Amino acid sequence: MNNSKKIKSALISVFSKEGLAPIVKKLHEQNVKIYSTGGTEQFINDVGIDVIAVENITDYPSILGGRVKTLHPKVFGGILNRQDNESDVAEMEKFNIPQLDAVIVDLYPFEKTVASGASEEDIIEKIDIGGISLIRAAAKNFKDTICVSSVDDYAEFLELISANDGEISLKDRKRFAAKSFNVSSNYDTAIFNYFNSEENLPAFKISEAKGQELRYGENPHQKGFFFGDFDEMFTKLHGKELSYNNLLDVDAAVNLMNEFKGEAPTFAILKHNNACGIAQRDTVKEAYLDALAGDPVSAFGGILISNVEIDEATAHEIHSLFCEVVIAPSYSKQAQEILEGKKNRILLIQKEIELPSKTVRTCLNGVLVQDKDNITDTADILTHSTNNKPSSSELEDLLFASKICKHTKSNTIVLAKGKQLCASGTGQTSRVDALRQAIDKAKSFNFELEGAVMASDAFFPFPDCVEIADNAGITAVIQPGGSIKDQLSIDYCNEHNMAMVFTGTRHFKH
Amino acid sequence: MNNSKKIKSALISVFSKEGLAPIVKKLHEQNVKIYSTGGTEQFINDVGIDVIAVENITDYPSILGGRVKTLHPKVFGGILNRQDNESDVAEMEKFNIPQLDAVIVDLYPFEKTVASGASEEDIIEKIDIGGISLIRAAAKNFKDTICVSSVDDYAEFLELISANDGEISLKDRKRFAAKSFNVSSNYDTAIFNYFNSEENLPAFKISEAKGQELRYGENPHQKGFFFGDFDEMFTKLHGKELSYNNLLDVDAAVNLMNEFKGEAPTFAILKHNNACGIAQRDTVKEAYLDALAGDPVSAFGGILISNVEIDEATAHEIHSLFCEVVIAPSYSKQAQEILEGKKNRILLIQKEIELPSKTVRTCLNGVLVQDKDNITDTADILTHSTNNKPSSSELEDLLFASKICKHTKSNTIVLAKGKQLCASGTGQTSRVDALRQAIDKAKSFNFELEGAVMASDAFFPFPDCVEIADNAGITAVIQPGGSIKDQLSIDYCNEHNMAMVFTGTRHFKH
Repeated sequence: MNNSKKIKSALISVFSKEGLAPIVKKLHEQNVKIYSTGGTEQFINDVGIDVIAVENITDYPSILGGRVKTLHPKVFGGILNRQDNESDVAEMEKFNIPQLDAVIVDLYPFEKTVASGASEEDIIEKIDIGGISLIRAAAKNFKDTICVSSVDDYAEFLELISANDGEISLKDRKRFAAKSFNVSSNYDTAIFNYFNSEENLPAFKISEAKGQELRYGENPHQKGFFFGDFDEMFTKLHGKELSYNNLLDVDAAVNLMNEFKGEAPTFAILKHNNACGIAQRDTVKEAYLDALAGDPVSAFGGILISNVEIDEATAHEIHSLFCEVVIAPSYSKQAQEILEGKKNRILLIQKEIELPSKTVRTCLNGVLVQDKDNITDTADILTHSTNNKPSSSELEDLLFASKICKHTKSNTIVLAKGKQLCASGTGQTSRVDALRQAIDKAKSFNFELEGAVMASDAFFPFPDCVEIADNAGITAVIQPGGSIKDQLSIDYCNEHNMAMVFTGTRHFKH
Repeated sequence: MNNSKKIKSALISVFSKEGLAPIVKKLHEQNVKIYSTGGTEQFINDVGIDVIAVENITDYPSILGGRVKTLHPKVFGGILNRQDNESDVAEMEKFNIPQLDAVIVDLYPFEKTVASGASEEDIIEKIDIGGISLIRAAAKNFKDTICVSSVDDYAEFLELISANDGEISLKDRKRFAAKSFNVSSNYDTAIFNYFNSEENLPAFKISEAKGQELRYGENPHQKGFFFGDFDEMFTKLHGKELSYNNLLDVDAAVNLMNEFKGEAPTFAILKHNNACGIAQRDTVKEAYLDALAGDPVSAFGGILISNVEIDEATAHEIHSLFCEVVIAPSYSKQAQEILEGKKNRILLIQKEIELPSKTVRTCLNGVLVQDKDNITDTADILTHSTNNKPSSSELEDLLFASKICKHTKSNTIVLAKGKQLCASGTGQTSRVDALRQAIDKAKSFNFELEGAVMASDAFFPFPDCVEIADNAGITAVIQPGGSIKDQLSIDYCNEHNMAMVFTGTRHFKH
């Protein structure tokens, strides 16, 4: 059984006419009867091709300012009839319904209308009823009908009708049906999200119609995709394709560095989504060198990010490090040339963009959705719990450490001194372990912890952490507070001349 | 301006009639003209309420075996006309179009048809065209029309028409419009996902129409939701509501314990998504006690999971520990009674279910999607790289450690001995740090590492890890292999009588 079919009739009603002319010309060449409405009808006429108004099928005018044009049983009968069903075929004849073998629709871009800041009335008017119904009906009946549902598919459709003498296989019709439901679900998801920005129904939708297949996922045996608009966020100057793990690290890096926007030159190095080095200095070169000093071992193969332009002097320093990705708002001409000196090194310019306010992740048989952690701890929200208040430099370090802590995997303890990360304990099952790890690591890289500060992403259930920190020379502490045993930690600090401030905000990140 | 409206006419076409009778009775009481089709018309007749066939509006029969019933300009004109638009009102009169103030539709459950294993032909026939068009049209015109789009909203709609003398506010009509696009986007997403299971277009959709608001997200200042079917996976016997972080931990626990399905009694304790203790023993009580011994400090407030029924003896032991959640396939009657002895402790029975094969997570302005890591390392896939082969008990421990490694956050090193986790280094930026952390932690809980084994989630770029492990007494190693410097690690092992096996499979997990 040969399931290929030639198109004998087509209904065309599109927003974008870009690339439509060659299609109607090709269809005309093949003696296809073309039906159309409104602007599309006019366009086809202008191309000089014969076209029949849909009203000639329906004997019914377009009504309600165009709100109802194609919603007629003769149109939908023409699309939905099963050509191998005797009763359908008999009804077609009885009711004088013309067969429609192809439907070509391109919808007015709803999301762009919303993004343009249009009025509610304009937005509502842009909700297409007839077009979506045509797409869905034609896609449902892919056994007999081909549906082109977007300007994005014009070129592929033109190829299909140009090859094989215009015979279109069932396989191709089915693929175009899948594309059609991609379009319709994407469209109604956008409408729902528009309505729900006010209503806040507990529903969650993602409809990404276009994605990029990555080399693989977290590991080579896993397929991986990124569904997002990379070019909206970055200009890629140089280097290989970003991997799944690169993208995760870039996400962590960008979110961390957003905390230091507009501040003095700050440089961070990340591995496995955690900062292994970060420093704020007068120059970007110093910031880089002191970030690297935080953990020159982990820095190997890391992700580098700067909050200011990378200059030639810094690029020289970076060049000797093997790193996967460098991110900065800009590069001097010389810096770019130097950094492009290694073939695979990925060089990104980060644009000014706002990231989504919610996050999603798979959990069990569903997804967890939450607001992003959008609180940055600042001096004015702190509660000073101890008799000792932090000195002004300690206070700066506490807020610096707290920002890093917020972007490090829980449990975490961050140790900092002089606007430099000394070490952090990351991803630990116990807070004491996180602290011990941070202290050991800082010492192993020759950090002097006398006068350093400690940040914790959650409260201390016991006073053991402040005691261990005190013994390591740490003099000031920032933490959310809120444990029923806070007073024990406060008492310890008071007895040992430590300053401790409470933020009131936990920063778990898993 | 009062935007409230009374319903004077309604079009009803539903799959589920459950709860419809009181609605049609109430509408009838309020002198609402009711239009309907097919089975719904029959149902309303049976309730003893006057109902007008839609064919009386359209003067057109249902054709093509019911594929085209309501797709008619008189029906869609009745729904889509703007009552404050003079030209619309004039056309309504001219074409004798009846006003339709309310549309009630409930769709045949498409997803259930797919899940039932129906044939393609049956599934395609279940793609609703007319019903979705009615829903979308009525929702678009929420200024004049109310759309009830699901049986789930019958009760709320009945309340609306029963209160305020049947006056329905614009606000309520708009909320029902949002619900309607929730339904339509959900429906077309399900259809797309059905088509795309074959086509594999690089598109990604999640449409969760029902969600559960959690107390909060990862932190109290973040809103959090779970969109999934908890009851499909678990029976909750006891305890408070699960939090966002509980759910993340339960996910980690269930995925970890799936590795030990059908094996001897295995018990794990997790904190911050990582196992802090796990052991396999002859009895579940021993398994619990030896899991706890892995890190009794982290176990405080942890998530407990068993692969076998929890008995009374084990429950007695667990009862003295403060823990958030206990998960098991079943509990003896006495065990359940004991464990329910603390008010907040969550007790879950885990059912036999298959979790999704893909995972999703937010990254930058989009999402990363990947296949789940579904490779479990087994003896038959191992390459023995060293002169020394692991003994049979070492081999068992290596595979045991490798399973834990796969479910621990990267970078990770897992140390195990005698089917017990000694310690792991978790979420580290450097592999050497992960190993050092694991050794220090194991020692701090008095583990004797002589004869223990080491698993690494990724290869060793240098031979430093095997050397450190050797110095700690570790005798066998499992790792993916694949470093250009593998030979250096192999040489070290050969020189020091260590056995090392390669899996060929990396297990990064971030």
